[in-house]
Amino acid sequence: MTTFWDNRFAQRTQLMKGSAIRELLKFVEDPEVISFAGGMPAPDAFPIKEFTDACNRVLKTQSSQALQYGSTDGYLPLREMIAQQSKRYGIEVTPENILITSGSQQALDLLGKIFINPGDHIVVENPTYVGALQALNAYGAEYIPVPTDEEGMVTSELEKSLRSSPKFIYVLPNFQNPTGVTLSFERRLQLIELSEKYGVPIIEDDPYGQLRFEGDNLPPIEVLDSQTRAQGGCYSGNVIYTSTFSKTLSPGIRLAWVIAPPEVIHKLVLAKQGTDLHTATFNQMIAYEVGKNGFINEHVKYIRKIYKERRDVMLDTLEEHMPEGVKWTHPEGGLFLWMTLPECIDSRELLTEALKFKVAFVPGCSFFADGSHPNTMRLNFSYASPDLINEGIGRLAKAIKQFIAKDKKA
Amino acid sequence: MTTFWDNRFAQRTQLMKGSAIRELLKFVEDPEVISFAGGMPAPDAFPIKEFTDACNRVLKTQSSQALQYGSTDGYLPLREMIAQQSKRYGIEVTPENILITSGSQQALDLLGKIFINPGDHIVVENPTYVGALQALNAYGAEYIPVPTDEEGMVTSELEKSLRSSPKFIYVLPNFQNPTGVTLSFERRLQLIELSEKYGVPIIEDDPYGQLRFEGDNLPPIEVLDSQTRAQGGCYSGNVIYTSTFSKTLSPGIRLAWVIAPPEVIHKLVLAKQGTDLHTATFNQMIAYEVGKNGFINEHVKYIRKIYKERRDVMLDTLEEHMPEGVKWTHPEGGLFLWMTLPECIDSRELLTEALKFKVAFVPGCSFFADGSHPNTMRLNFSYASPDLINEGIGRLAKAIKQFIAKDKKA
Repeated sequence: MTTFWDNRFAQRTQLMKGSAIRELLKFVEDPEVISFAGGMPAPDAFPIKEFTDACNRVLKTQSSQALQYGSTDGYLPLREMIAQQSKRYGIEVTPENILITSGSQQALDLLGKIFINPGDHIVVENPTYVGALQALNAYGAEYIPVPTDEEGMVTSELEKSLRSSPKFIYVLPNFQNPTGVTLSFERRLQLIELSEKYGVPIIEDDPYGQLRFEGDNLPPIEVLDSQTRAQGGCYSGNVIYTSTFSKTLSPGIRLAWVIAPPEVIHKLVLAKQGTDLHTATFNQMIAYEVGKNGFINEHVKYIRKIYKERRDVMLDTLEEHMPEGVKWTHPEGGLFLWMTLPECIDSRELLTEALKFKVAFVPGCSFFADGSHPNTMRLNFSYASPDLINEGIGRLAKAIKQFIAKDKKA
Repeated sequence: MTTFWDNRFAQRTQLMKGSAIRELLKFVEDPEVISFAGGMPAPDAFPIKEFTDACNRVLKTQSSQALQYGSTDGYLPLREMIAQQSKRYGIEVTPENILITSGSQQALDLLGKIFINPGDHIVVENPTYVGALQALNAYGAEYIPVPTDEEGMVTSELEKSLRSSPKFIYVLPNFQNPTGVTLSFERRLQLIELSEKYGVPIIEDDPYGQLRFEGDNLPPIEVLDSQTRAQGGCYSGNVIYTSTFSKTLSPGIRLAWVIAPPEVIHKLVLAKQGTDLHTATFNQMIAYEVGKNGFINEHVKYIRKIYKERRDVMLDTLEEHMPEGVKWTHPEGGLFLWMTLPECIDSRELLTEALKFKVAFVPGCSFFADGSHPNTMRLNFSYASPDLINEGIGRLAKAIKQFIAKDKKA
């Protein structure tokens, strides 16, 4: 039956799909389910005291500004702080290169809004962040998926995808969501070389870069790109970089940022004006108060410690419990690892089984722009405590074994 | 010179224009300028103590939830509170009819996203809220402006615009931005009748409805529409209602809501997922804590008192200082009044003159979808103190008189 509204919705709504992850959240509400599904930070790592102090300070001394409308580009001291902190990773920018957004998701939405005409091609890692697909789908993006392996996007397979003049290359270089893998140094260089050769901009989405547990930090693509260009004597970056406070302070305050050339920032500001005027002034001032004296760098050390322990527990219990034929990545940081099951298993069907065992994960195919690889899944190790990870992986292994046994019988 | 980026931006970016109001904000930074330009609430009416208490309570007892990711539709207790408070205005809804948005601007953006195909016609009041034009422009909306007078949209002129099958009618019924006028009861009924006859939905944008200083509240269009339908024995509202906490609590927390049939809310939720995942959990919980015990209704009485005084001062000083040929509206609530100058005056040119006298306003033509009526302007009376309003209107009158004198000479 067609209702009053059905034929009034815009065509683009047919391209909008709900996130499997967010739909899974309803199962997670069952307190007995151990969830490896979300991408949620550990709540025990939220800096509650610092937030409380910051709220009190801001409301006591700057309430007229904090509770009032603000500028679309963002609170200047916060942008200055981000510029300052970016230097630690070699990113040399001024506040005019920075736009504050309401979470990274909004950064992706605004980038879609200013760049994508319906039918434009976007190069993505296969698999890639499902939220990026959701954001860009609404603008009619079409995807050219490039395979990934343990070193990230297989850049030797990239060149042919650039010949169709894609609008940009979207890449998560560090502890990628969903696979947990990191783009190697050599491939970063090759990515930049190809991006330059074909004149295709790169969007570098880096929510997890600061959460490295071991090994050396790799330079951001933005930095390598600038260095290459500086040697050529002509600086004009074509990398747009985005990061967030969601994984270092709190996702519930919805604060992230985009770093880009001023002319791109200008267009993003125009788009953001029409989209939500500006990001909450209050939240921006709180984040600045919490972060201004170098607190974030100290706090991140604590988060790394917690997450490393949880990753280790997950890797150990996977090793202990998983049946033959199941493989997984060994991320050096971030929040996720990626599991590949025997090809006969569809992880969506497995999820139904796993929920009976009171354990949840995200089936992998949502992360593939082409919907392939049903035998994969994403496991989050940041949210559940080590004990629960231990218990949950045990349950998951039982579910998988039972599923395989049933499959053999059938 | 064409840069690397120029030919990479999407076509829709050509439709995005900066808001004259936000560009004016830079003048307002000059502390000597008395600004009637913004739409800013009085900072002395921000409930600082209540915010401080709420922050402390939420962070003390619910930090794990407040700083974490939340659901896209919004914090359930806040939606319950809004449903409860809407009853006061006769709006009977449950939380499933409510979506929390990051300010009303986001509500407009999401409505554009789910409804507008490029080239779709939207019926708007002439003049209308410039932020709505900005939000909808990005989706390729085209406008059918309907004239307004002291009773709001001239509904007798509406019918012909409905024959071209517009996507919806966008209307601000109470103390409209920019004119300050209120849609009369008779016209509300006529609007609904025509909307029903032609099957065109109405978007009722009501940020100021609670800020009535005198006279009786008029029923929301949503309520009148439901009553009409209920009499016909078949409830299926085709009014989408939106309001905000920006004018009753604080605009700096960016919190608003949409009330709509569940199938529209469902599409809005899908769109919001891709746009910014969800509105800051922290802010939603703070607003709930501040508002849960009926505080908002009490606080609004205080705001009304302040704004009524300021409106009165503005009306009195306008009466006292303005030269012949200048007219203005007499709003019974809200934040704005509307001034019409002799036809020979272009208020954009007048603004240059006025800024020399250190007073600012918004030239009226930005609010007209067809860019007409250069001899109009919007004056805000909520932000400046009564003394400054007195002084500022004096300055503005001098600027106008000087402008007219020059004009006569030329």
